Amino acid sequence: MKFFYKYAGVSELELARSISKLEQYNSHLFDVVKNSGYNSVESSLNLPSDESILKEVLTLAKNKKSDDLKYIFVVGIGGSNLGTKAVYDAFFGYYDSLERERFPKMIFLDTQDPDVLIKVKKLIDGLTNKGQVMVNAISKSGGTTETMANLEVFYSTLSNKFGDISDRFVVTTNNGSKMYAKARELEINVLTIPEIVGGRYSVLSSVGLFPLALMGVDIQKLRDGAVKMRELCVNSSLHSNLAAISAVLLFQNSLRGKIINDNFIFLPQLESLGKWYRQLMGESVGKDGKGITPTVSIGSTDLHSVGQLYLGGPKDKVTTFIYDQSNNNEIMVPSELAFGIIQTIKGKTISSIMQAIVSGTKIAYGKQGLPYMEIVFEGVREGEIGLFMQFKMIEMMYLGHLFEVNAFDQPHVELYKIETKRILE
Amino acid sequence: MKFFYKYAGVSELELARSISKLEQYNSHLFDVVKNSGYNSVESSLNLPSDESILKEVLTLAKNKKSDDLKYIFVVGIGGSNLGTKAVYDAFFGYYDSLERERFPKMIFLDTQDPDVLIKVKKLIDGLTNKGQVMVNAISKSGGTTETMANLEVFYSTLSNKFGDISDRFVVTTNNGSKMYAKARELEINVLTIPEIVGGRYSVLSSVGLFPLALMGVDIQKLRDGAVKMRELCVNSSLHSNLAAISAVLLFQNSLRGKIINDNFIFLPQLESLGKWYRQLMGESVGKDGKGITPTVSIGSTDLHSVGQLYLGGPKDKVTTFIYDQSNNNEIMVPSELAFGIIQTIKGKTISSIMQAIVSGTKIAYGKQGLPYMEIVFEGVREGEIGLFMQFKMIEMMYLGHLFEVNAFDQPHVELYKIETKRILE
Repeated sequence: MKFFYKYAGVSELELARSISKLEQYNSHLFDVVKNSGYNSVESSLNLPSDESILKEVLTLAKNKKSDDLKYIFVVGIGGSNLGTKAVYDAFFGYYDSLERERFPKMIFLDTQDPDVLIKVKKLIDGLTNKGQVMVNAISKSGGTTETMANLEVFYSTLSNKFGDISDRFVVTTNNGSKMYAKARELEINVLTIPEIVGGRYSVLSSVGLFPLALMGVDIQKLRDGAVKMRELCVNSSLHSNLAAISAVLLFQNSLRGKIINDNFIFLPQLESLGKWYRQLMGESVGKDGKGITPTVSIGSTDLHSVGQLYLGGPKDKVTTFIYDQSNNNEIMVPSELAFGIIQTIKGKTISSIMQAIVSGTKIAYGKQGLPYMEIVFEGVREGEIGLFMQFKMIEMMYLGHLFEVNAFDQPHVELYKIETKRILE
Repeated sequence: MKFFYKYAGVSELELARSISKLEQYNSHLFDVVKNSGYNSVESSLNLPSDESILKEVLTLAKNKKSDDLKYIFVVGIGGSNLGTKAVYDAFFGYYDSLERERFPKMIFLDTQDPDVLIKVKKLIDGLTNKGQVMVNAISKSGGTTETMANLEVFYSTLSNKFGDISDRFVVTTNNGSKMYAKARELEINVLTIPEIVGGRYSVLSSVGLFPLALMGVDIQKLRDGAVKMRELCVNSSLHSNLAAISAVLLFQNSLRGKIINDNFIFLPQLESLGKWYRQLMGESVGKDGKGITPTVSIGSTDLHSVGQLYLGGPKDKVTTFIYDQSNNNEIMVPSELAFGIIQTIKGKTISSIMQAIVSGTKIAYGKQGLPYMEIVFEGVREGEIGLFMQFKMIEMMYLGHLFEVNAFDQPHVELYKIETKRILE
């Protein structure tokens, strides 16, 4: 992963001035990592080097895996599933409709959806043994309405079909939650989350690592990427600290009216990774009337959708282009064209056409005076995604500091929850 | 479909004053419909009552359909596939991973993606006869780079496997485009698009109707819904004209700094419908430095993602809540709970829990003083989607008028296209 910011619309001087404000906080982050453990709101930084989590997750995944396994149901919402979905979709989910025979498939039950549950019941009904299914129910608090409703429906569906199914469930929750106690009572394996680590920073805890390991994702490489980025950002001089630089650029742009951060991803399989980031930014700095609205666009698809707005509409956005610079030479346009309407694509690789579109878009943004940064992947691989996720999590800690908000709480979420609970009662 | 706007933050007086500015334009729309045909930029209004399109599409779909048909590939991008994908995903696509055995499946090839094409090649390789596949390649201009590259790759893949495959293709394009001529030469069936109808207004032309009819969607009901909404909006007094009212509310809100229109859809299967709207709004009014940025959020999922930002962050959004008020009583939380952590969900239907969340969210928005409108579906059915799409297309014509921009062109899209072409050469 590389990061470029030459066209972000912030001068070196401004950048240097703003970054110096982060010095004290940077040394705090340094201490958090040095001390390891889970005593600070920033302790998610220590997840990717926590060997006990890795061992516990790998052991349980090995134990639950079997050749029969066809469906992994992840029951959870928000911070409990967005990181897992980001990684699953990058490698598998985006291609699921093209690969019917690839198993296991992961299915995410998050919101309340009767049509989905009817189809899930039919699917379960068609299974021949309980080893074909695993369920990971995840709720940090143990009291998320949607998750508990889906879990109750799922548990009764599966036990009606197969009888004792406690071995087909794994519950991930805070140590000591009601869900923790109940799972133990039902003889279900439980994984815990360090209490202080919030949902949106928890992808590298058992929340993300267990289901991904069960899927066969190389979680060690994901962790390695995250450690590498942490070392680059937290231990280095602030002036070569990518996450701090990116935070300052977003912040400075927001001060001059760029109140939307569009993540324009020219890798459609990373749309869910964009949505993971959308939560991270939305919940971390969207408070006290402050914040930046994160959006996710997919290139080149959305050039044919909101490209007009972005290039010709209000100048209220700072863009983060995300694309791949590795070349896939396997697929190319034939050198003998059947239609032959655009001659310039003849014999070119599909990768190189995409890269031409990315370059063309950057030039057009430049000509319109639209500020942008670039995150460049070297292939869609676990290590790259680990680098990206850690980059963005650290960026968000700095950004909270710049906005002078608490990047680790989400007090306003309670507003609708309170009203919903009142109605349900 | 119902539309409520009591909490949109615009007084009756302001609404009346602003709506009166639309009178002349409204009578123009009335004339466009009265005269039928395709002589005006607003002529998409006449698509849903065009019997010749319907007949042509149904005849061709009947001709191409067979029991063998397993995969319908839609090769197109932007206005060429967003409407079709919106409808397909609402009824089928959103559930595809749960329904492996349901056929035909529709696969959308839009951007440039070598990994997808590798998997498509494998999939084609596994087919046993060419009747299992149909390809609808759609490009209004006939010269869209991504579409032509995907089409050339696909055509050569399929002909390498099966020899003469011209009967497995249908091309949809402007009469007289190079693509039109070439398709005829290759003995491929061609459907045309009324020249004056732009991509984002073309879902009810052969662009959307043919692939949807092939899928088995009841396109007559989709058209009926659109006609019903057109009659409600274009022929009526402006003061009961939902599309005009909605346009004014969006416009007035944008004047007071609500420069993002969040479409918060509590029906996850309609996410692609939201993306269809995103193009419609983005391309129609995002120009001359003006416009509103459309976003799509999914309830209740995104309450756990950007809910904090929406409720506690900058007040720069006007929200359109979209939800279903029909009840599905088939799925309920068991009255005997296995976990029993939230007692208030016991024995409740999943639908009613979702409705409680919608109500709770609306109350929370109200308490925070956040303006919102409501679009209420009565079940996810073809007629409802037809109503919605027509509502939004007419709204956008009025909105263009209010912003004093041309709601039918997209001049800035050329900026990146020119640069991309230069690079490809």
